[in-house]
Formats: sequence, C-alpha cells, structure tokens
Amino acid sequence: MENRNATAAVIGAGDFIGAAIAKKFASEGFTVFAGRRHGDKLAPLVAEIEAAGGRVVGRSLDARKEEQITAFLQDADMAAPLEVCIFNVGANVNFPLLETTERVFRKVWEMACYAGFLTGREAARLMLPRGRGNIFFTGATAGMRGGIGYTAFASAKFGLRAVAQAMARELGPKNIHVAHLIIDAGVDTEWVRQRRIEALGPNALDDPDLLMPPASVAASYWQLSQQPKSAWTFALEIRPFGEKW
Amino acid sequence: MENRNATAAVIGAGDFIGAAIAKKFASEGFTVFAGRRHGDKLAPLVAEIEAAGGRVVGRSLDARKEEQITAFLQDADMAAPLEVCIFNVGANVNFPLLETTERVFRKVWEMACYAGFLTGREAARLMLPRGRGNIFFTGATAGMRGGIGYTAFASAKFGLRAVAQAMARELGPKNIHVAHLIIDAGVDTEWVRQRRIEALGPNALDDPDLLMPPASVAASYWQLSQQPKSAWTFALEIRPFGEKW
Amino acid sequence: MENRNATAAVIGAGDFIGAAIAKKFASEGFTVFAGRRHGDKLAPLVAEIEAAGGRVVGRSLDARKEEQITAFLQDADMAAPLEVCIFNVGANVNFPLLETTERVFRKVWEMACYAGFLTGREAARLMLPRGRGNIFFTGATAGMRGGIGYTAFASAKFGLRAVAQAMARELGPKNIHVAHLIIDAGVDTEWVRQRRIEALGPNALDDPDLLMPPASVAASYWQLSQQPKSAWTFALEIRPFGEKW
Amino acid sequence: MENRNATAAVIGAGDFIGAAIAKKFASEGFTVFAGRRHGDKLAPLVAEIEAAGGRVVGRSLDARKEEQITAFLQDADMAAPLEVCIFNVGANVNFPLLETTERVFRKVWEMACYAGFLTGREAARLMLPRGRGNIFFTGATAGMRGGIGYTAFASAKFGLRAVAQAMARELGPKNIHVAHLIIDAGVDTEWVRQRRIEALGPNALDDPDLLMPPASVAASYWQLSQQPKSAWTFALEIRPFGEKW
Repeated sequence: MENRNATAAVIGAGDFIGAAIAKKFASEGFTVFAGRRHGDKLAPLVAEIEAAGGRVVGRSLDARKEEQITAFLQDADMAAPLEVCIFNVGANVNFPLLETTERVFRKVWEMACYAGFLTGREAARLMLPRGRGNIFFTGATAGMRGGIGYTAFASAKFGLRAVAQAMARELGPKNIHVAHLIIDAGVDTEWVRQRRIEALGPNALDDPDLLMPPASVAASYWQLSQQPKSAWTFALEIRPFGEKW
Repeated sequence: MENRNATAAVIGAGDFIGAAIAKKFASEGFTVFAGRRHGDKLAPLVAEIEAAGGRVVGRSLDARKEEQITAFLQDADMAAPLEVCIFNVGANVNFPLLETTERVFRKVWEMACYAGFLTGREAARLMLPRGRGNIFFTGATAGMRGGIGYTAFASAKFGLRAVAQAMARELGPKNIHVAHLIIDAGVDTEWVRQRRIEALGPNALDDPDLLMPPASVAASYWQLSQQPKSAWTFALEIRPFGEKW
Repeated sequence: MENRNATAAVIGAGDFIGAAIAKKFASEGFTVFAGRRHGDKLAPLVAEIEAAGGRVVGRSLDARKEEQITAFLQDADMAAPLEVCIFNVGANVNFPLLETTERVFRKVWEMACYAGFLTGREAARLMLPRGRGNIFFTGATAGMRGGIGYTAFASAKFGLRAVAQAMARELGPKNIHVAHLIIDAGVDTEWVRQRRIEALGPNALDDPDLLMPPASVAASYWQLSQQPKSAWTFALEIRPFGEKW
Repeated sequence: MENRNATAAVIGAGDFIGAAIAKKFASEGFTVFAGRRHGDKLAPLVAEIEAAGGRVVGRSLDARKEEQITAFLQDADMAAPLEVCIFNVGANVNFPLLETTERVFRKVWEMACYAGFLTGREAARLMLPRGRGNIFFTGATAGMRGGIGYTAFASAKFGLRAVAQAMARELGPKNIHVAHLIIDAGVDTEWVRQRRIEALGPNALDDPDLLMPPASVAASYWQLSQQPKSAWTFALEIRPFGEKW
C-alpha cells in the first residue's frame, strides 16, 4: 500500500457500511477520518485499519452540530487535502402516521438530511479552492418512494437526494464530483440475516449474495471516486442479483 | 350558494394561491378556515368572501408550531366537519451553496416540509374517525428537481412530496384522498409580471395565459376534491399552455 | 343536451373504456367518431348513444394503417371540427422473455405505440391550422415500469408515453392540449371481477370502488378537455382509493 | 494480455462508442464479435485490435433481422461462451412532428428498440443454460425525456429502456446482469466538435473533458461487467463534469 497525500472523511462510520468504506479507502492509501456519534465504538475499526498498515483517525461526532462538522472536516483537511467526503448517516424508522411524533420527524431529518447538507457544504468549502474532490451521499430506496410508515424517513431521504442533486449541478462544473448512492436491498448484517430467516425460512440465506455486503458498497464508492471527469455518475443504484424491484 | 356542513382549512392563505383557494371553497359553500403568519393581512380576503355571502374565519397561524396547527384544525373541525385541508405554505429561496446558512436551510424546511407533515398528520387525525376527507399539498417543480441554488428549497419540497406520498399510501385505503399538486410555472402576480417583462421584453405578457392564474390553481384543487373514490389522482401537475418543460 | 359544432374521435372504442369515453363526449353534445377493429361490434354503442339523443358514427378501423387513420380523422373533421382526439388502443400481453416472439413484439408495438403516433400526428395536422384541440392518450402503469413478462407491452407503452411527451412539448405552445392518462388499476369488467374473486376470495368486490369504472376514466378525460389553457395537465394518473401503489 | 475463454458481442460496432467497447473487451482478453450494418467498415477496427494482440471477428449485420441476430450470437457463442452482449445501435434523428413520416418512425424503432429486443432475447437464450452473463444496452437522454422533435427517437429509446427493465427483472435472479447505460452528453467525435465550436465559439473545447470520450463509455461498460453479483447496477448514467443537466 502506497500512502497518498489525501484524506477521506466518513461521516457516519457505523459498524457496517461506514466501516467498510473506511477500510477500503484506508487500504488504498488515504488517511481516513471516521466520525460517529459515540467515537469509542470506533476502536475496533481503528485497530483493524492500523493493523493492516493504514492511517485512520476516529472521532466522536454529532453530525447534526454545524460546528462539529466544520471542525471535523477542517481537521481532516489539515491532515492531508480532503479528497473524498462520504456522508453515511442512517436513520431508518417506520411508524404509522399518527404515531410519528414531531420529535421523531425532526430528529430523523436532522440526522439524515440536515447533517448531509452541513457535510456537503463544508466539504465543498474546503475543496472548491483546490478545484477537486468527491462528495458522496448514501441514499436509500426510501429516497425514491414514500412507502407506508416512512413519512419521516422517506421525507428526510428525499430531502437528502435533493441536496445531492443541487450540489452536483453547482459543483460539477467546478470539478467536484457529487454522487448519490442508493442501496436497494437489505445490507448483510446479523440483524438482517435473522429477520430474513424469520420471514423466509431457513434457506433464505443459502445464497449469501442475496444480501448486500458492506464491502460491495465500499467498492462502489471506490469506483465512483475513480471515474474520470469526462464520465461521472451522479445517481448510482446497486442491488443484489436476486433482489425484487 | 348553498351552505355545506363542511369546513375547508387553508394553511398558508397567502395573497395569491392561498387566497384563491379560500375563495373557491367558500363560494362552493364550505366554511373556510384561513391561516397565515400575520393574520391581520387576511382582512381583505375575509371581507371579500363575506361580501360574496361566504363564511370564513381568518387566523394568525405559525404553521411551524405543532400546538398551533393542532388548535387551528380542531377549531376548524368544530365549526363543521373538516372535509378539505390544504397545505400551501411556500418558502422559495435561492442561494449559492456556500451562502446557504444552516439557519436558512432549517427555516425553509420548517416552513415547507415540517409544517406540511404536522398539517397532514393532524388533519388525518380528525378525518380518520369519520372515514372521509381530502388532504392536499402545494408542491413545486423544485420538489422534482434540485436545481442550482435550490439546496434548501428543493430539499424541503422533495421532503414534502415524500410526506404526501407516504400519507397517500397509508390513508387512501381509509378513504382519505391525499394529493400533491405541482404548479410548473410562474404564478401570475405583479412581482412575477415585472420580472417577466424585464427578462423577456414588453411583449412577454401579451398572452395572459402564459402565467398561472391563482384561480386556475384553486380550480384544480376543487376538481381534485370532487374526484370519485374510484378514480383518485395523487400527483397533479399543471402548467400554462406555453410553458417550456 | 345542446349540440356542439365539434367532433370527438375515439380510436380504440372498445367495450369498456373506449365506449364510456364515446358516451361521455356524445352526452356533452359532441359528434363522436368511434373506430375499432371490427366495426360491427360498435352497433350496441351506437344504438345506446343515439337512443340518448347523441350523434355518433361507428367505423371499422385498423389503427395500424396510416391511410385508415388519416381517412377516419379527416371524415371526423368534415362532420364538424375535430376538437378532441383520444387514442385508446390496448394490447396488454404477458409472456416470458424467451416466449415473446418477434411477431408479438412487433404487433403489440404497432397497436399500442405506432398507431398512437399516427393518430396524434394526423390529429395535429387537422388541429394546427385552427390553433386549438385536445389529443389524449390512454397509457398504463406498464408505461412507467417494465415488469417481468412485459417486455413487449411495457416497451410499447413506454414508447407511447414518449410520443405523447414530445407532442405535448411541441404542440402546447400552439394551443393544442396533449395529455397522457395512466389508469393504475384493473378496470371494472366482468373478466377482471372474476379474476379478483379467484385471487382474493368472494369478498374481493364488496366495495365496487376498488376497481376502476370505465365511466370514471371517461370523466377524467372530460375534465382534461375542460382545463383552461392557463393550467393544463400533461400526465394524469388515476387509481381507486384502495389500490396499492 | 491473457486470453479468456469468453466472447463479448457488440451489436452496433460503429466508429465511436461501439469501436471503443470492442477494443476495451478485446484488450481484456475477450474474443470480440463486432457487427455493424456495413461490415467492410470494420476493417480498421479489426486491424487495430489484431495489431494489439486481440482477437476479433467483424461481420456485416442488419440488427433488424431476427435470423441475422440469432446467427451472429450463435456464432459468437461457438467461438467461446458468450459472456457479454452489448447493444449499441443508434438512430438519433430530429424532425418536427408533421414531418416525421411513418417510415422514419418505424425505421428508428426497428433500429433502436426492436433490434435491442431481439439482441437481448437471443443473448439470454444462450446465457440462461449456463446461468451467467451480461447484457447491456446503450440508452440516451432521449430515453428519459421526450423533447421537441424527438417523437421517433425518444419513443424508440423509451421502448428500449422498458425492454432492458423487463429483462433485468426477469433475468437478474437467474444471474444474468442486465444494465442500461445513459450517456448524457455529446460524444467526442469530429462532427460534435465542429457543432460545439459553431455554437459556443472557438474556446468551446478548451477542456477536452467537456465531451464524452468513447473510451470512457467503454470503461463504464467494463466496470458494469465486473460488478459482483451482490451489487449490480441496472441504470447507469454518465456525463462529463461540465455538462448541464
């Protein structure tokens, strides 16, 4: 692994997708800045990356706080130029309409949309003077379709998609690649595996490729970051071969 | 005009579209509850409706306050069963990304999305026990496409569209008609007329039907409210004949 | 009923939707030109319209033949100015991909897309010199989504939607209203009723409004034709209140 | 370059995108079967691939003829298992509606949609028994939006997109990856360069990455073919960084 003079920031470095992204970019020589609500939970990720020879900084980060986002990205950019910034905060909840409290509606939006806006804007502020960079957002199928019970989550994810679109149109001509990735499948976690088996029976997981491995998401982000500026993708959807859609 | 035992609530009864909607439903015999931020500005509307023999209550209403929305709709429902509830709060702003403050982003969302969620949920709460009603939302082209400078506005309008979709899917089978109207044009106001003439020259308004008259929006809402339950429309877009799209 | 000096042409005046459209426009005073493959099947429709005091001409028409479309619409326009032209030819088939013959693929396209293009173009040719008119197309959910087994049907219906869009954009500024109606539900026919009962049990039809009555489709076309030029709808979708989507 | 026991077929191996795709897959060790209307025009491509040590068969192919498509793909599959099949026939024309003859409408459809259906179906027939393969279609922005003058082209490209969707949903669970690539930009050809300079002035091409290089399209197809089955993309759009959208 050759070290690069470049940082990749992962806002929302959770146990699955976020961690896989962090590992991928670290393995490609980036200094990784990984942030999540409770930074102490990042210890295993940091240990794993460092054991593999990678460079990583783990931080507690409340992505809903403007000053924290600003400081986190500035620190990342001081370590090495911020070349990739990935917003990956999730907030998937499902409630019947009448049970969706204003508090839930607001909190889901703050996590999944507002924090994404702050992240993208502050990353752009650092990247624009250099005229290069990548800003990627993790979307969801709920960002394309407002299903029953998803008033809060779909609303936030629709809003995040709009943020990404408006940013892509403004920043693209300035050589900053903005993309929005939709994972149209359950991600392969222990919790999802159990739900599948309960719903579909013991053979539900015979083919492991029916679920989305976090590493495949990470590989997709990596490919997006490697696209030449003559052929950028804004909206990327990925799903396992057997997924109904 | 025959009076009905039914109320139509208009949240965001501004000078143009909101007022036209209020007048239309009043002229069809509904008791109209009209709310806007500064209720004193409702005086001319109230006078006009009453002069025409209609019934109307004008109220100051900050649609971003849950308790105000709840009280407003409860009062409307006590006057007569709430049959139609229209959310029409606008918040159109355009800023370059780096100049979009977190305060603007949050405020636009509170006005154009969060308030819409509160309105729809509280209207549903009143309509569900009776098993009938109409909940309509005024969308915008920015709710379909995130253009440059519309990070805040498009994000809020995308989010509102998701709210409407999720509500429509949940409430439709319970006989509550939820719809989302997109006005793909400039609305015919003095301000818009001046901008047109500046941009396109003195002949820009030779055909008055090139702009969207508020009364046409009101007529569209009226038609939506009259659709039989066997043939409901969720997404309605309207544009003047000469509009480019 | 007051007679109008205007013709409404219905291409694809089948037993259900097409017939309902013909009856609606006849009842509103239009001279109706109704065409379908086997014109002798139009006898009951013609009798019903005439018994109600309406004016109607029924013709055999193979909509896939350019010269027949041209002659049909010219004749309609000579009876009275062609004001409304509705293309309603269906061709719903479902085959696994490998069993979709080139003959089926071509025939479905000729019926559902190519014939629609011919109809729209020839109607426009007659309407443009007068600077007014309405051209409407019956679409389908398959025109929005290519589901399994619908290679032929979805492809044709997608193609028809594109025809309608391109025509709407070109003809709108010339005051010809082009619209595309999507009926997102089973239409209420005896055949569909039987399938529902087989699939969902004897109570499947307890609420008759769960299926789409042809008259509701006709009413929707009527409303489209009555929209003021300041507020036209291009894409109209209708579905029964209880339909899943 | 290591030779693979695999064939990649390119239907519509024109001078730009098709040729670039052929070169890319040949350089990755595939035997390439390249077909275009006038096979003699393939001589330079064949020479270039062979000079680089690749394997390629060039054939005259009228993609609108079922028996020719069948024979072409069978021959390809006999050379080595058909692993990748790319449909790349273009047919971009623009005519005002009234000047769009039925002959043009039909021919554009036969080239851009019907031939794509034949290609996809016959490729699937060969791939299904082995339970693996990739079938990719070159779409266009006109397959998403029917603009003025594109009645014929948009209709065909919408239809092709539906073919791809229906195939993807049916074949995905059988481990055949179907994808639809939209190139939202002018492709970098001499003809397009001249048009740009005429329209935008002598500096229009100062940044070569403003146009889409055929090699970038080829690289995108290559990446699609390398996606793991746990994370397939169906719809891929690519555009140069400076493209307005």
